[in-house]
Amino acid sequence: MGVVTDRRRVVRVREGARAARPDTLAVEEPLMVRLVGPGAPAGGPRPLGRVVPVGGMPADGVAPEARPGGTTLTVTMRTPGDDFDLVAGWLVSEGAVSAREDIVAMRLCPDEDNTVEVALARGVEPPRQRAFATTSACGVCGSDTVVEVRAGLRWPVASDPVTVSADVIAALPDLLRERQRAFDRTGGLHAAGLFTADGEPLYVREDVGRHNAVDKVVGAALRDGALPAAGTVLQVSGRASFELVQKAARAGIPVLSAISAPSTLAVDLADECGLTLLGFVRGDSMNVYTRADRVR
Amino acid sequence: MGVVTDRRRVVRVREGARAARPDTLAVEEPLMVRLVGPGAPAGGPRPLGRVVPVGGMPADGVAPEARPGGTTLTVTMRTPGDDFDLVAGWLVSEGAVSAREDIVAMRLCPDEDNTVEVALARGVEPPRQRAFATTSACGVCGSDTVVEVRAGLRWPVASDPVTVSADVIAALPDLLRERQRAFDRTGGLHAAGLFTADGEPLYVREDVGRHNAVDKVVGAALRDGALPAAGTVLQVSGRASFELVQKAARAGIPVLSAISAPSTLAVDLADECGLTLLGFVRGDSMNVYTRADRVR
Repeated sequence: MGVVTDRRRVVRVREGARAARPDTLAVEEPLMVRLVGPGAPAGGPRPLGRVVPVGGMPADGVAPEARPGGTTLTVTMRTPGDDFDLVAGWLVSEGAVSAREDIVAMRLCPDEDNTVEVALARGVEPPRQRAFATTSACGVCGSDTVVEVRAGLRWPVASDPVTVSADVIAALPDLLRERQRAFDRTGGLHAAGLFTADGEPLYVREDVGRHNAVDKVVGAALRDGALPAAGTVLQVSGRASFELVQKAARAGIPVLSAISAPSTLAVDLADECGLTLLGFVRGDSMNVYTRADRVR
Repeated sequence: MGVVTDRRRVVRVREGARAARPDTLAVEEPLMVRLVGPGAPAGGPRPLGRVVPVGGMPADGVAPEARPGGTTLTVTMRTPGDDFDLVAGWLVSEGAVSAREDIVAMRLCPDEDNTVEVALARGVEPPRQRAFATTSACGVCGSDTVVEVRAGLRWPVASDPVTVSADVIAALPDLLRERQRAFDRTGGLHAAGLFTADGEPLYVREDVGRHNAVDKVVGAALRDGALPAAGTVLQVSGRASFELVQKAARAGIPVLSAISAPSTLAVDLADECGLTLLGFVRGDSMNVYTRADRVR
């Protein structure tokens, strides 16, 4: 568990009066994800030590230490803690992995903070550095993007028969908030929570980045062997963007509920994937943008 | 000006009753940024038509049409509208350009929506695809990142002599909100506004992404020849992350004010750069995290 909050000195101005005091803030630090082992290009600059399987990841006998070097997959700003969940979930969101066996091992780099080394199983393609950036075609459009994501899904969330009562949905924002350990101290952390259709919490994670909070939840589920997350509801603390709907769909989550507004492309993608998308879930009021048949 | 809002059908559930109605949402669409002309690698797949300078960008006689192809710099999800501002500001935020003369021309791709082609002046290095992702070193840390950004600044915001009254700061969130044309219809758009130290609005832009809203403001200033934005205050509708402080510092903006919480790394970077960072600006109360000497 990393340091989630830290203190900085602040001058508080209130009604013209000033007072200096310490303030508790959400920690933001870079995290580097390095690919090592079978899928990584050889000949990198530093030799690898022994990779110790961590956090329930099974070792499959592949010896990543036989491969020197490695390659940086991404660097993201995140709140420390649950880093293995974050990396695993990010790999799911990028469409690279779908089962815990796809990841041979993860470890924190022993020499440096903020670096996770990950080894993928043979045959698992690592994510491209950016999903779109390598295309050389001129022109992108939302409809094509939506259809492309739909075509790449491993699990058909459209056929998930789950239904959820509106009362359960209405209760999720408070259930999420109650489980946000660091929010009350900082006012600065997003959260995501995966719940059963009866409102039982499965995983709740926090992060300065709302995408990271969702990746942490998805990664925790992957590491428990719980993907696809059929029959579940993902509650998020902020808005629903295209990217959050994509993350839910790629994890096999059939219902996404947001406290704030969705974007047009979030609705279009949810519609295309057959995912139930809710927004403005506040008190006993909510908007159901797609697949309202799942809300009782 | 693109389509900022659009309608989707929604089922509203309230106190157990359901009603189907149209709902107005913030539009989210991908935007592809393609580099053409002098800095772009030749030999791409499609020949370029004539590049028409747009939006006040001076043509310097370089003939981008002589170069076939081009390369994709980035694809980002954004709210359409102010796309040239967005691209220009993104180039500033990435550290690639600092004056409008650095950009020879921009145009919307005539064949396809959602693509901006940009030609940079000779000698201007295009952004690397991701600032960090090419490093092969093991380990990243917040302190190094902060020092690196500080070292790369073109303008010393630390020495900006501006001061701002707490009353002006306290008024900025409402001034910003009043100028958000699309927020009231959707509840789903972030905003950023650049103001003088007296609270006069210079540029206000909206986007589903808070980073994009800031890039649009910075790009508008660049295109007016108004960078560095010395003596100004940037007000943002959400939180203050590392990345937002970086964007402000790279545009030469000495004061950044956020309605919500900053992260630790946002405070550390503001401190290192000598930028005044305010958070929780609500009513007549505010927290000043760094360089409080500028707040009267």
